[in-house]
Amino acid sequence: MVEHSRAAELDRIFSALADPTRRAILQRLTNHSATINEIAEPFPVSLNAVSKHVMVLERAGLVRREIRGREHYCWIEPHPLRDADAWLRKYEQFWEPRLDALEAYVARKYKASKQYQASKRRTHGSDR
Amino acid sequence: MVEHSRAAELDRIFSALADPTRRAILQRLTNHSATINEIAEPFPVSLNAVSKHVMVLERAGLVRREIRGREHYCWIEPHPLRDADAWLRKYEQFWEPRLDALEAYVARKYKASKQYQASKRRTHGSDR
Repeated sequence: MVEHSRAAELDRIFSALADPTRRAILQRLTNHSATINEIAEPFPVSLNAVSKHVMVLERAGLVRREIRGREHYCWIEPHPLRDADAWLRKYEQFWEPRLDALEAYVARKYKASKQYQASKRRTHGSDR
Repeated sequence: MVEHSRAAELDRIFSALADPTRRAILQRLTNHSATINEIAEPFPVSLNAVSKHVMVLERAGLVRREIRGREHYCWIEPHPLRDADAWLRKYEQFWEPRLDALEAYVARKYKASKQYQASKRRTHGSDR
């Protein structure tokens, strides 16, 4: 049941992030909280459309809203981003193989250099 | 234009990840490549449904497919996961404030302990 609700949370988080306007809204909220009007300002879409995007972000837990008088203040809630990141990082080993390859290459070079030095010592030894 | 196509890529990646079956398919492909039949085996959905999920993952660049004879072999392509992770990590500073708070707490405790020791030395000094 817990697993199921965690899966549903991840569905909502990833789904909320799958839109450039919603990602830009989160970006806009990183520095300080803002009203819906302030959030909407730079976007070439209606206030209503921005308000709907904010609602999707709210449902995913990515934005919190507080109503003060006639204004709705919104701010970013980063913990769902951390959860999404934790899921992605399970796959980190698959996108970092080049580092493993580099390590293997350095180890091979080191071994080859040691063998070369040992063979040189043997050659010098037989010269004497 | 490049920005726009990168945004569209992120849309497809996050959208592909916004489904538990698709996330489970990626999980299944982490150990080795698999045919569509093998992928479908543990899921209580039709082969056709699994095939459609694989297509969504393919369009997001998360899965590659190779046709050998009558079999379709699929494997995970991790680089889009890295791109999604890179986007998320821009927000890491917002979900790590507790670590900063902990550091500040440790620094305060250290300073307080130093002050206590200094005052103790002064007291002992005046006792002599």
